[in-house]
Amino acid sequence: MIRIAVDAMGGDHAPAAVVHGAVEAVGDNVAIKLVGSAASIERELARFGGPGERIQVEHTDEAVGMDEPATTPIRRKPNSSIRRCAELVAAGEAEAMVSAGNTGAAVISARMAIGALEGVDRPALAAVFPSRSGRTVVLDVGANIDSKPSHLRQFAVMGHFYAREILGSAEPRVGLLSIGEEEGKGTELTREVASVLKTTGLNFIGNVEGRDVFSGSADVVVCDGFVGNAVLKSAESLAELITEMTREELARSWRARLGLALARPAIEALQRRTDYEELGAVPLLGVRGGCFIAHGRSSSRAVASAIRSAAEFSAARLPAKIRDSVAELHRQERRLLGVDRPARDLPAEEIPV
Amino acid sequence: MIRIAVDAMGGDHAPAAVVHGAVEAVGDNVAIKLVGSAASIERELARFGGPGERIQVEHTDEAVGMDEPATTPIRRKPNSSIRRCAELVAAGEAEAMVSAGNTGAAVISARMAIGALEGVDRPALAAVFPSRSGRTVVLDVGANIDSKPSHLRQFAVMGHFYAREILGSAEPRVGLLSIGEEEGKGTELTREVASVLKTTGLNFIGNVEGRDVFSGSADVVVCDGFVGNAVLKSAESLAELITEMTREELARSWRARLGLALARPAIEALQRRTDYEELGAVPLLGVRGGCFIAHGRSSSRAVASAIRSAAEFSAARLPAKIRDSVAELHRQERRLLGVDRPARDLPAEEIPV
Repeated sequence: MIRIAVDAMGGDHAPAAVVHGAVEAVGDNVAIKLVGSAASIERELARFGGPGERIQVEHTDEAVGMDEPATTPIRRKPNSSIRRCAELVAAGEAEAMVSAGNTGAAVISARMAIGALEGVDRPALAAVFPSRSGRTVVLDVGANIDSKPSHLRQFAVMGHFYAREILGSAEPRVGLLSIGEEEGKGTELTREVASVLKTTGLNFIGNVEGRDVFSGSADVVVCDGFVGNAVLKSAESLAELITEMTREELARSWRARLGLALARPAIEALQRRTDYEELGAVPLLGVRGGCFIAHGRSSSRAVASAIRSAAEFSAARLPAKIRDSVAELHRQERRLLGVDRPARDLPAEEIPV
Repeated sequence: MIRIAVDAMGGDHAPAAVVHGAVEAVGDNVAIKLVGSAASIERELARFGGPGERIQVEHTDEAVGMDEPATTPIRRKPNSSIRRCAELVAAGEAEAMVSAGNTGAAVISARMAIGALEGVDRPALAAVFPSRSGRTVVLDVGANIDSKPSHLRQFAVMGHFYAREILGSAEPRVGLLSIGEEEGKGTELTREVASVLKTTGLNFIGNVEGRDVFSGSADVVVCDGFVGNAVLKSAESLAELITEMTREELARSWRARLGLALARPAIEALQRRTDYEELGAVPLLGVRGGCFIAHGRSSSRAVASAIRSAAEFSAARLPAKIRDSVAELHRQERRLLGVDRPARDLPAEEIPV
């Protein structure tokens, strides 16, 4: 049984869409704790005949708004639902948390309460995109800016495990996002990262470009969160624009409208393939448990999909695998440098899985 | 009469597609000089009954390949067609150049032979994207990496003029690409740029995110070439993937195939709205003349569209407007700092394309 703590107050359609999504996703293998205003949650649950056996309600009296600073759960709202979710994971009462709320607040709550895995300096948000060959995971898409080579190397290891264990790539091809594919192109940062990635034992395929996110030529694309966030947000927005333009063009003539009517199931199938609701939420990799962040506009279907992703992630015991592999990286590094690694800023404890 | 120097040897389908495109684009107001192997160009021209009045051929015996280093026209191939195009602009024999060849080689040729406008430290590639409100220009998309605040400020001015004079925005909204829209979010670079952009007199709307490239909330999006390139390349690739998925889904059932047949004109109209061939080539802003770089895969239609864009750009006298406005920026800066600006100095080796 996998237990998921769900932030009932997070997202534009909370708590209704979140509670509805939880009811959809709960099952034989998944139990859910809905965290937030008990009165609001129970009102929504009543529509489905009450919570049922596998849904519990955990009351908190604060919620972080979408536009509040990321540090709100730490500084101003210690009783916020988003922070309580992270604390439930930290206390071993849940394997993973899911929030469609404030991304920055979720990242900070998870880092502070759940904590980074031993050896991981910077947990990273990993977005999964559809591609010609299946799916490509891009990280970081926004948890970090000004990443250093050692951080990007850790992202590569985390992305490798995500692609292998969750996306099913036997030997994931790991690319480094740069400007131009030739070796030696890019910034000082990418040149340095490219040289360290060769020593990791990963299937490192060298520099890739923005086109490789969707072309299917890489399974993992590693980048700093500033550029990854720009790629994620622009891709979501472009997919929406194309959908909107398709509707516009198909409404222009009777002939096109008839075509649209006939092709509707195909167009809907297409939308499912490019829709963030189907692609699931974005995991924060590198923390001692699961943390999935769903889109702020998540519908109940998107929330259900995020909960299922979090359960699948927890069942795969990814954090333990990442921890062991990052530890091996650091051993390699110490051997190479002949020195001990400096202490990390975050305390290391045992992983709750 | 606007005279355009066209690199007949540049692009995957050169010289056939380039010559064909030139024949399509030439007209009462546009004369063309086709630069490259005279024998090959004349063979292609023969298919259209010879060059006609307004097409001339300029022979060169070298061509830069797509995978050759950007410095090739400077170091190894001084007689390359791409460099000769830039020299024709520098000599006043053409108002603008067009190449579908090696982007880095075109940028370096233009910078070295045509030269940067007075006061412009770094010319920038400006890509135009379709958006909800019309079109959005993003710069830089790959001519520069590790841009400094003063460079991004110049990009903002250049983007402003492009949006106003070419895209027809009366008072272009200029946004700074960052991670999070709130003031104070982003990197040290974006925070510094945001504060200097407030002093330019432009219609600066603050930080924008990747989504704003397509959402229509900004007319100009300013960023370093590393991130702009990732956004450009990933967007092109995503648009292609969606087109391909649409075809796949619409071929799955007789019903969808019939729908596709009826909707075909609408789908073709849609493709024209998202297709780089229709959106034209990418101008290098900030040089003393026009330099348009078309996609390497350009068809004759794309080349013709690039030539028309270059002619329109030259007719609008954009370089002179940018020069005057950048000069005004520098006067402001000198007044603010109470000092003279240091001389520029950027040897070719430092151009990071």
